[in-house]
Parts: sequence; structure tokens; C-alpha cells
Amino acid sequence: MLNRVRSALAHLVSSGGAPPPSPKSPDLPSATTAPPAAAPEAPKGPPARPGSRSGAPAKTTEARTSFCRPTFLQLSPGGLRRADDHAGRAVQSPPDTGRRLPWSTGYAEVINAGKSRHNEDQACCEVVYVGGRRSVSGAPREPSRGQGLCFYYWGLFDGHAGGGAAEMASRLLHRHIQEQLKDLVEILQDPSPPPLCLPSTPGTPGSSDPSHLVGPQPCWSVQKEVTHESLVIGAIENAFQHMDEQMARERRGHQMEGGCCALVVVYLLGKVYVANAGDSRAIIVRNGEIIPMSREFTPETERQRLQLLGFLKPELLGSEFTHLEFPRRIQPKELGQMMLYRDQNMTGWAYKKIELEDLRFPLVCGEGKKARVMATIGVTRGLGDHNLKVCGSTLPIKPFLSCFPEVRVYDLTQYEHCPDDVLVLGTDGLWDVTNDHEVATTVDRVLSAYEPNDPSRYTALAQALVLGARGTPRDRGWRLPNNKLGSGDDISVFVIPLGGPGSYS
Amino acid sequence: MLNRVRSALAHLVSSGGAPPPSPKSPDLPSATTAPPAAAPEAPKGPPARPGSRSGAPAKTTEARTSFCRPTFLQLSPGGLRRADDHAGRAVQSPPDTGRRLPWSTGYAEVINAGKSRHNEDQACCEVVYVGGRRSVSGAPREPSRGQGLCFYYWGLFDGHAGGGAAEMASRLLHRHIQEQLKDLVEILQDPSPPPLCLPSTPGTPGSSDPSHLVGPQPCWSVQKEVTHESLVIGAIENAFQHMDEQMARERRGHQMEGGCCALVVVYLLGKVYVANAGDSRAIIVRNGEIIPMSREFTPETERQRLQLLGFLKPELLGSEFTHLEFPRRIQPKELGQMMLYRDQNMTGWAYKKIELEDLRFPLVCGEGKKARVMATIGVTRGLGDHNLKVCGSTLPIKPFLSCFPEVRVYDLTQYEHCPDDVLVLGTDGLWDVTNDHEVATTVDRVLSAYEPNDPSRYTALAQALVLGARGTPRDRGWRLPNNKLGSGDDISVFVIPLGGPGSYS
Repeated sequence: MLNRVRSALAHLVSSGGAPPPSPKSPDLPSATTAPPAAAPEAPKGPPARPGSRSGAPAKTTEARTSFCRPTFLQLSPGGLRRADDHAGRAVQSPPDTGRRLPWSTGYAEVINAGKSRHNEDQACCEVVYVGGRRSVSGAPREPSRGQGLCFYYWGLFDGHAGGGAAEMASRLLHRHIQEQLKDLVEILQDPSPPPLCLPSTPGTPGSSDPSHLVGPQPCWSVQKEVTHESLVIGAIENAFQHMDEQMARERRGHQMEGGCCALVVVYLLGKVYVANAGDSRAIIVRNGEIIPMSREFTPETERQRLQLLGFLKPELLGSEFTHLEFPRRIQPKELGQMMLYRDQNMTGWAYKKIELEDLRFPLVCGEGKKARVMATIGVTRGLGDHNLKVCGSTLPIKPFLSCFPEVRVYDLTQYEHCPDDVLVLGTDGLWDVTNDHEVATTVDRVLSAYEPNDPSRYTALAQALVLGARGTPRDRGWRLPNNKLGSGDDISVFVIPLGGPGSYS
Repeated sequence: MLNRVRSALAHLVSSGGAPPPSPKSPDLPSATTAPPAAAPEAPKGPPARPGSRSGAPAKTTEARTSFCRPTFLQLSPGGLRRADDHAGRAVQSPPDTGRRLPWSTGYAEVINAGKSRHNEDQACCEVVYVGGRRSVSGAPREPSRGQGLCFYYWGLFDGHAGGGAAEMASRLLHRHIQEQLKDLVEILQDPSPPPLCLPSTPGTPGSSDPSHLVGPQPCWSVQKEVTHESLVIGAIENAFQHMDEQMARERRGHQMEGGCCALVVVYLLGKVYVANAGDSRAIIVRNGEIIPMSREFTPETERQRLQLLGFLKPELLGSEFTHLEFPRRIQPKELGQMMLYRDQNMTGWAYKKIELEDLRFPLVCGEGKKARVMATIGVTRGLGDHNLKVCGSTLPIKPFLSCFPEVRVYDLTQYEHCPDDVLVLGTDGLWDVTNDHEVATTVDRVLSAYEPNDPSRYTALAQALVLGARGTPRDRGWRLPNNKLGSGDDISVFVIPLGGPGSYS
């Protein structure tokens, strides 16, 4: 995530003076955020192993290094060094020789051009088994026809202010999803509507028995029907929250600073759930058509939520910030003049007389990639960031950040997919320099060069997307064929075939 | 608005007992809301005159009756009685003989089937002139090429718990818009980008002079560009707020109780602005294609905003409500069991153990037309409702209601419109029984039966839409051709031609 956490300029807020130009590349502004995976974060334990099917509760038992790459890349020590080389920026993919990723998923990544010491993106791809939860008495539930569930899982995590949060999330978020789904194993496999209420008597089995349903109450004329799909969405939402809470609990012991965006795909019982918290993006390219599967959460897209919070809880703004937005910084000499503004209720702009309070720094300022909350962070959802403070202040930024994803659902059974239909996930390193249409064109170009049943075609596509966003070193920079600057950020891409050679019955 | 304000059941909340069945038709639940335009609200002054171009500030100088209809209907006393007849439910339109509405706009309305004493919908259609604001010194601004602006205005107001708010809004909201636009007269006519900051020195003219621009500050790399369009949006948003504040100030003196939804169209400088606060709806039918121009604000569509407010300001919930949503009412005997819920962050559902607090009544409950905030009101945006309380409690509901509209913009210059292209506005009386597709079919059917240059075709269309939603009296009710119940609510419809015989250069 390039420059998404800025050195805050809040020390200039009260003086009203002009702050110095913002730093060009360093990404780690203050003492309150950790150095970018520097010495103190050297490896203290082995990286997690891929494909583990343990149902053990999600716990961090040791600190991890952020200088690690996804284990499915199977990097040797030499390979790890090459993957960490900002000058070469070699594109990394799982080896052709090893075990393929589920569904023949394609993956490629490249490190940034120097904005942080290590690659702060992380990735995970797993098949996770969910057994039903043991009853309170300790005995396993009576076996039903359910016998547990499997879900396929892909996650991209784009770290900022250190790689620790992304690394932890890549290792544990799917375990939290697994944990949340444990209560639902039987319910999700029962075609009848989920019971609204479950007894919680120790040792009482099951919940999918409709006799557990308590009848509707007269205060609503009908009870709300809750779908299986909305239970999975709720499970994913709560898993994100539990992951975030775990980071809060364990951050001190493990020097886990910073935060990360999280873009996660869960395939379960015929449906693809795409959960996004941050500014990574997912699209489906199906028969050339583009279907957006996520939206980004930034200070601009979440302006009104942020302003409302600042308005309702002004103590969160300290004496440094105002919840109002202005199109530029106000100077003290402009006091009493009429300035454009908008508040939490407005989409449009209007003029107001500048008062003393308006000289405070706006909670939300800047445009596009330069938009910031409290002059510091450029994404408004994600995991971690519990220690993030406004520079030169003790004001925490976390209250304005949400760990909750937006979850979109795609029913894989509603369409006959062909091998060229794919779900593409990318961190902002991809999307900063590539649009949906260009990705769709690359999908078509690369996949048509391979046999439909060649499972390596999706890796080739992921590599082409990463290379296309990175560019080649030329004219003192990484440049695209059109001579524009390529992405200097970490770039990570999953290509998930929706009708490919993978078997996902 | 049929049954949109319910007799609150909150007195049953703490007891946990089953409330009595909700009343079938009466709409006026409690002593805290006014009777439906009954005796105390008898006429105290003449209704506002249409087409007035006065720029006088918006003020209520006397109380009005809610037993009045839009003056453009030109109803005689006998006509007014017929318009007020629940048994006949005669469709009302402006007379063919009088002055046509601007743009040859079509209009039709019908009273409800008995759910309130009078028709609580109101409507307004005006051409409003905006002169520039006088400077502080009292002298008029130097004349520029601007010379003031005209906007076309249409408004539908669907009252609840009395007709006072709708009547007041229909008389004054366009005056508030006019007032907000006064500062922008010169700016909107100047093709250069609006100045971000205006001097406010007494007597200093104008603001569209770019020399008034103060240069960008270094704390943002660029200043935000604000469009003319977003100034108009801001003006409309602030006009809604000022209208609502005026209702708050004047409600006691004029027995103005209740509230109203507001759906407003402003045509200004080539663009159509559709502002909606409530559950009325607007669509464009263009060459058979349907373009939604509004969305509804209900407890269901605004659930997360409402829950967030309840979560951040629990004092607004008293001891009677919980911000959590449950799919049905919880019984005290279910304490300790696992129940589905969702909070302000969730789209999906999950199980939680029922605690004592969960026995409170949910802030948001019910589905579809039966969804309610605090068991009382079924719309979450609009004007008025300052006195609305939970029945049997002093808990105010207004903090959860927003007076701010969502504004959508349609650029009339971007498409060559034909006489059959129309913007249709309707209160929920129309939309409860008619969908977009049926409206589009009626548009085609009715307009094709008239010559394209026949200005009466839009009134005929509005009448057909109202009749189609009302139905005919049969089998002890108003029934549609398919024998389903027609709308028993007040129904009001504007049909605004986008390429018709109206001249709107």
C-alpha cells in the first residue's frame, strides 16, 4: 500500500501554518507505528504451513516475521532473497512442479519499488474443513448427514505501516471464519429455513430440527425469514471482527503494529462470497463481461460515515480536527469570509462563514489516492491499526476505521461457466495503474493463448497482470508500454477460474 | 401515507407480553400526534397563491388548514367538497380551461379510502425567480449579465399524522430553495469554477471574480474542484434543513403537527435535480427505458444508519429499545437461548445468547410496508415530526429521522428527448400497487393515444396512473382489474414532459 499511511501533519493544525511538503516515499510516519519489518521484527517462528486442516482455535503462539512470503510459493532461502529485491522486482508464482493451488488458481506477486523494506502484501489460499462444534458436555455432536463442511478460501492482505497485520491475517483469518461456521454446519446443510432461535441446553444436539423453532409472536405479523446465505455473510463479518480483536489483544506481545486491508473469497455450497475491507478489488470477467465484486473503502467513499462519527462523538476529534470538510486548507486570515464546506448530511457544497473552529484540520481531506483521515491514513476499513495515532498527538485513529467487510455473493450455479471465466483479486498495486477493461483484455489475450484445459494458464494470467502493472525499468523508473509510471507498490493477484479444470463439486 | 405512523406498542416492551393486534386502518395513534386535520385546524388564512414570484423570505404568517388542495387545481367550494369525499374518490386534475402548469405538466390526485379525514398529500408546481442577494450595505448588487435566475419546481408532499406539515412544505419549501440560491446567482452563471472562498466585506460585490480565489495551500497538493452542480445540490439540501427548522420553530403557534415525505424536482440551467426524503418515488421513462431517479428511505433501507445512531447514543433508546435487530420478538422465557440478530455493522445474521437487554423492543422491526422505527413510523426521512413520541413514553423519535434528501441529477441536454419521454413523480399511494414496468406501459398506452403536441396528454396520463392505482369500487373495496385491492391511500402524481410542448429554454 503505497503511502497510504502518511506522516501526519497535525502539529501544524493548531498553529494554522502551512505544513511542510509531505514525504515522497517513506511510509512510516511516526514513533507510534512500527518500522517496516525491520530488525525488531526478525523471524521468531516458522511461517504457517499451507493446506493445514487443523480445526484448532485461532491463536498466535509466537511472533512472526513480516519478511516471509506465502508458503504456497515454496521459496528457498535464495528465492526468498530474490522476492525481497526491490531492484529486480522479480515476479513470484507457485512453482509449476509443486502441488497446484485449489481450482488451479493462478497467483503472482511482486515487491514494491522501495517504498517499504519488505513486501507488505500477504496471501493465503486454503481448503478448510469445518466440523460441527462439540456440545457443551464435551461429547461430539451426534453425526448427522452433514458430517462437516468444506470451504475454499483465498485471501489478499495489503499491509501498511509494517507487514505484521497482513502476515497475521493471512495466517489466521480463515481460522476465524472456520470458527464462526462451526455452529452452522448442520443448519447450512438443512434445506429448511434456519431456525431463528436455538436452545442452549448443555448436551442438547442440533439446531436444524424445526421443532426448535419457537412460534412467531403477535408483535410482528410475520417473523423475518433469514436465509442460509445471510448466515454465511454474518459468519464472515464476525470473523473479521474477531480477527481484529485478536490483533488488539496480541499486538503488544508480538510487536504487531500497523494494519492491513483484507480481500477474501469464500466458496461454500455453490456460492462465492467476496468480502472486502479496504481498497483491494475483485472483479469477475465472464464471457468478456465485467462484474464488480467489491467496492473500495476510502476517506472519500466513507466520508459521510466518518463525519457523522466525528459529529456525534466530537471527543474523538480532540481539539485538532473538525468534522466539516473544506475544499482546501483555511488560513487564519480568512476568518469571517465565506468558504465552501460540506457536513455529514451533505453531498453538495455550500458556503459558510469561517469561524475559529473551522481553522482546525478537517477530519477528511484530499482527493483520490491522496485522500486521508486525520491527515494520516488513506483506507477506512481493514484489520489492525490499533496503535495508529495522529502524529505528534495521542489522538487514536482506530475509532474511525471499521474492520467490517462488505460481502457480495455470486451464485456459481446460476450460470454455465467456461474455462475463460475468472474471478480476479488484486491489491491496489494492480488497480492503481490498471482498470477493469484492461484486465478483461488481458484475460482474453492470455487465456486464448493456452489450451482451455491447461491448468498453468491462470498462473500465466496472474503473472501477465502483475507484469503489466509493474512495467519495466526504464528512464529511472518502472514504466508501462505507454511510458507512464508503473505501480511502485507491492502488487499481488489471484486469478480464480470459475469454470476451469479445478474440481469443486 | 397509509398507516405509516402506527400506534406504538412500547408500553408492552418492558412487560414482554404480547401486544394486541395492531389497528387495521386508523392512522393516528396517540395524543402526541395531531388529529387528522380536524376542527382545531380549520382555515385561519387563505391558501398560498400559485405562480407567485415574490422573493420574500419564507415565513409563516398564519396557520393554514390541511383541508386545502393545491391551488393550481382551482377548486370551487363544491369541487373542494368532492375532492374530500372518501366514498366517491373522484380524481382531481387542473381544469382544461385554465392556465396550464409549466411545461404542460400533468397532475392528478385522489383522496384516500378513509384512512384519514382529509387528503394528506399536497403538491406544488411553480416557476421561481431568484434575484441576487442584496449586499450587506443594503444596496442591490451591481447588475451583471446574470440578472437573476429562474428555476422550475415541482413538489409532492405526503403527510402523516395530520396534513399540516405537507401543507406547509408545499407552500414554503421552494422559497427556502430560492433563498439558498440567492448567493449563487452570479456564480452559477459564470462558466469558471466556483470560487472556494468569498470575501464577506460589507458592500463588496460579487464572488464570481476569480481574483477572489485564495490560492491553494500546501497542505493539500491540489484544492478540490467544486462543480456548479454540487452547489445546487448543496442549496437544495440546506433548503430542506431550513424548512425542517422552520417547522420546529413554528409548530406550536400553528398546531402544525405530524410530518411529511418530500419529493422535489428543480430544473435549473439545463439540469433536472430530483431530491427525495421519504418513500415517494420518481422515475424517468425515456424511449421505453426506465431510469430510477430516487430511492426510498425506510427503516429497512436505513437500518444500519439508525442502529449506528442508537449504538453511539444509547440515551436516545431510553430503557425501552435495543439497537440490535432480531427476526422476531423475543419472549422472556427464551433468556439464555441462542437467537439470530444483527447489529449496525452487519448485513448478515448470526446467533447470540439472549440477555436481559435483548428483551427490549428493537429500534427497527418488521418487514416491507410494516417496517417501523421504534414501533411507530415507517419512513426515516422527511420534514416535521418534531413532536413525534413513542406512545406511552416521552421518548422522541425525531433524532432518528433525517430531513436531508438524496439528490439525483439528470442532464437534460445530454439526450434528444421526444414528447413521450417523461419524469413521473408519485407518492407511495401510486407505488404501493404499481411497479415501474406498469407505469412505463401506461405511459406508452396513454401517450400514443394523443397527438404528440396535445398538451392535455400529460394530464390524461397522470389521471390514468392515479385511476390505475385506485381501482374501482367493487366487492366492498377499491379493486384493480386483477381483483387485487387498489391503493386505499392518498395518491398524487406529476407527469413532467422532458421533450414536450413546454418551452424551457
